[in-house]
Amino acid sequence: MKKKEDVYGDHISHQFNEDLAGLKEDFLRMGGMVEQQVVDAIDALIDGDGHRADEIRGRDKQVDRLELEIDEEATRIIARRQPAARDLRLVISVIKMVSDLERIGDEAKKIAKFALSLSEEGKAPRGYVEVRHIGNHVGQMLRDALDAFARLDSELALRIMKEDKRVDEEYQAATRTLITFMMEDPRNISRCMSIMWVLRALERIGDHSCNLAEHVIFMAKGEDVRHTPMEEAEKVVGN
Amino acid sequence: MKKKEDVYGDHISHQFNEDLAGLKEDFLRMGGMVEQQVVDAIDALIDGDGHRADEIRGRDKQVDRLELEIDEEATRIIARRQPAARDLRLVISVIKMVSDLERIGDEAKKIAKFALSLSEEGKAPRGYVEVRHIGNHVGQMLRDALDAFARLDSELALRIMKEDKRVDEEYQAATRTLITFMMEDPRNISRCMSIMWVLRALERIGDHSCNLAEHVIFMAKGEDVRHTPMEEAEKVVGN
Repeated sequence: MKKKEDVYGDHISHQFNEDLAGLKEDFLRMGGMVEQQVVDAIDALIDGDGHRADEIRGRDKQVDRLELEIDEEATRIIARRQPAARDLRLVISVIKMVSDLERIGDEAKKIAKFALSLSEEGKAPRGYVEVRHIGNHVGQMLRDALDAFARLDSELALRIMKEDKRVDEEYQAATRTLITFMMEDPRNISRCMSIMWVLRALERIGDHSCNLAEHVIFMAKGEDVRHTPMEEAEKVVGN
Repeated sequence: MKKKEDVYGDHISHQFNEDLAGLKEDFLRMGGMVEQQVVDAIDALIDGDGHRADEIRGRDKQVDRLELEIDEEATRIIARRQPAARDLRLVISVIKMVSDLERIGDEAKKIAKFALSLSEEGKAPRGYVEVRHIGNHVGQMLRDALDAFARLDSELALRIMKEDKRVDEEYQAATRTLITFMMEDPRNISRCMSIMWVLRALERIGDHSCNLAEHVIFMAKGEDVRHTPMEEAEKVVGN
């Protein structure tokens, strides 16, 4: 905390700082939970572990509950403490980012659903290499996004934004590969489609992690870098 | 406006009411733009109109710009006017909903991208009936969601939430049909996949419209019905 008292004077109370710290903490707790859901969903798929897939779907309810709680908490802080400037940016960003976390949780749940059906009908013949590879990649992006939030690290956030382009390329390549598999052996179409949806979910997780990163830059720098070219974002971060 | 002065007393100024009205207006303007994008994208796909598809992709930038402007506007209202209770709910809901609108715009852009590639490689043989049908359905949901917002109509919002289940069923059925087409003639796999992604985008538009509806109920009733069973939502709306 960089001497906020100098800027806001009396407005800042000890309780206010505690509220903000609590909000960040809860957000990171939800983030950690969602991160674990993603890891577990990929493992469940590749190991053909239907039991674990089932657990993931159950835990998604906890993620949903946390979303509602954090939204309420953020609204209460705005109503009671009337935050300004950087603090208001933090609270509003959390309100935005919590939707991204919830959707990442949803994507993990979808992967778990496919893990369950694939474990029942026998493993998918192809595409697991791609799932593991892209899964690791977006898992790292999500972890980094949460770290960047915790440390308000806009340089790390910028790197995540750049990674997203690579994930998109990997995703395109994997999709082409799977279409080839389907053409080679049409009996595999249905199972290949399941893998296709899983890849799609992973790509979305990359997108949402990228959204988180954009918000971190907004919090740290006060400039909104959504929908701006990468060169602009680089200037904002000061590279 | 139902005699807000009675509740907030001096806090409410003429300017404040104007700010809120301006925010709602801008949100509805963005909504109208996004709605048109969805309609145009489906038409471009079915008519094989690459030129129109190209225009949609260009107009997405305007949608993105509106998102940033509305977020800024909402943040400014919170900072300057310190809204409470129902007004704060409105502003925070707009902040949330504007992300849904932007994502609907993104999905329309994706559909336009497939429209463009399909128009170049010749029409897809199958699946257009399904696209038109589900497209009309989610288009109506989006229109209704914007109407429900404009009139704070929680009963209409509840009906949209119920429609979403039907869209999901239609989507599942359409997916199964397309998999059958692919199995029958593997040479069509690639083009069928494009239609598959379009259907997926439409299904997401239905989801986002449903999110909008949930926020309308929150604004009108003060109860958060996200992640609650339909019977709970019905009780909140008072049916």
